[in-house]
Amino acid sequence: MYDMLIIGGGPAGLSAAIYANRYKMKNIVITRERYGLLAMTHLVENWPGEIKISGMDLMKKLEKHALALGSEIVDDEVVRINKQDDGNFKVITKSGKEYEAKTVLIAIGMERRKLNVPGEKEYLNRGVSYCATCDGALFTGRVVAVIGGSDSAAKEALLLTQYAKKVYIIYRGEQIHPEPLNMEAVMKKVEEGKIEIINNANVKEIKGNGSVVTGVVLDREYNGSNELPLDGVFVEIGSVPNDAILKPLGVELDAKGHIKINRRAETNIPGVYAAGDIVDDPFPKQAITGAAEGAIAVMCAFEYLHKR
Amino acid sequence: MYDMLIIGGGPAGLSAAIYANRYKMKNIVITRERYGLLAMTHLVENWPGEIKISGMDLMKKLEKHALALGSEIVDDEVVRINKQDDGNFKVITKSGKEYEAKTVLIAIGMERRKLNVPGEKEYLNRGVSYCATCDGALFTGRVVAVIGGSDSAAKEALLLTQYAKKVYIIYRGEQIHPEPLNMEAVMKKVEEGKIEIINNANVKEIKGNGSVVTGVVLDREYNGSNELPLDGVFVEIGSVPNDAILKPLGVELDAKGHIKINRRAETNIPGVYAAGDIVDDPFPKQAITGAAEGAIAVMCAFEYLHKR
Repeated sequence: MYDMLIIGGGPAGLSAAIYANRYKMKNIVITRERYGLLAMTHLVENWPGEIKISGMDLMKKLEKHALALGSEIVDDEVVRINKQDDGNFKVITKSGKEYEAKTVLIAIGMERRKLNVPGEKEYLNRGVSYCATCDGALFTGRVVAVIGGSDSAAKEALLLTQYAKKVYIIYRGEQIHPEPLNMEAVMKKVEEGKIEIINNANVKEIKGNGSVVTGVVLDREYNGSNELPLDGVFVEIGSVPNDAILKPLGVELDAKGHIKINRRAETNIPGVYAAGDIVDDPFPKQAITGAAEGAIAVMCAFEYLHKR
Repeated sequence: MYDMLIIGGGPAGLSAAIYANRYKMKNIVITRERYGLLAMTHLVENWPGEIKISGMDLMKKLEKHALALGSEIVDDEVVRINKQDDGNFKVITKSGKEYEAKTVLIAIGMERRKLNVPGEKEYLNRGVSYCATCDGALFTGRVVAVIGGSDSAAKEALLLTQYAKKVYIIYRGEQIHPEPLNMEAVMKKVEEGKIEIINNANVKEIKGNGSVVTGVVLDREYNGSNELPLDGVFVEIGSVPNDAILKPLGVELDAKGHIKINRRAETNIPGVYAAGDIVDDPFPKQAITGAAEGAIAVMCAFEYLHKR
């Protein structure tokens, strides 16, 4: 019987594991992808105190900390969380193991929606990114494109104008559709020549020279060519929560499938907490905010266990 | 004109400075006590990724990061924040300087609470201290007391056992209530005879011989006397907000004088954000949660500036 079972081995899950040990709560981390999405970021420059660190190195520091204090970490996938009549949880994994826990922290993160075109996987972190906040500064003075027409895509493009000399927005629909005020800000940058919008276009391929991205192939001509030279491609066509375990549990989700939490990282189900990219934070998800939510979840779970 | 003026140089303020640079927001940190209260903690073991680090070293890492990215940090005290008709803020400091900023982040932390008993002021730095990290070594081989029952008080007592031959913990309540791991460590020192806990007792007076502390007077008998002979008294009874700049600004406070914020680190005043120990978090304040709030404040201020 664990005091807290943590699902997910990213910044939120590992920070929670560290805190759970500090609070003497017996804990286990079950992670499908060790280190989470952050491990994909080749350079993290916004973890306070680390001027430059690879996502992988940062995650290994957190993992080492959690292990040093006594956490168990297992590579497996949770397929089912059942709340029992006694208020405890039974957690079942793909490998067929069963765990019992008094509280559960869901820190499973999100999966970035992929374009699923040639070159996307090959040039990941070599020009292909899913996070302007993480990687934007790497493209200072360069030419980049954001793929997508949502508010998030517009925000990514706006942020990128602070670094890149030129930002294309490539969108498959008639017209990008950010929040009006962000639309206005984008149009101002269009007037300044910093942003250029290519509507009604799909990216068919991401091209490179073997080591880095050199451009994209569009499904229509733009300025007389189907090829657009680029140094970077930011894919911002949304993320998808892995909700296979969330719906049967009955945890409340927002319209986008994120778990609704309050400032105490509590969900609608007593004893179930959530942290990190899977939650409905009203700001761009960051490693530091996920780590804080993990810590908060533990502090509040500790109180919950004492009251129970 | 700054995009964000940050008041306070603790984890929240410096994390915000780092993020403001990442968002290309021109920023300045004005700090009365460089590094904030955390610098007084000799050992931090719950900053994710740092198994053991001194509070001062952690803060220096954050400061280095903020400076490397271009933040200005000045040692001064903000005495007044005025919101102007144009929506910007004028900030006035004790040294008489004036700054203009589009947004303000209040991350001023808390001040140590005083006992307010006779002898406390008189013997400050002559046996009375608020920081074991700073002054502990002065009491090598001596007998000292920590006043307070919190986790901080326990940590101070544990640190002092490294110097003093005997450490009393004097607490007004039924039982001290540190983090479970620290409680365990304290109880081990009690068994060893290094720590002695006096519960249900208040200090009524700090006595001295005119030059240094000689003991305290308790409001109940302990071992047959109300007087306890001591060489040093470490007061660790929590902190109070410094509200001198908050009330004139009109920022909404809770009953304890903490600034009310929402999940976006927004206060009731557009353009004014708050983060760290000064806010009304519904959980124990941590460096990691303050740092996250600082980052969130910046991300939300960036959006606010774009919409304005």
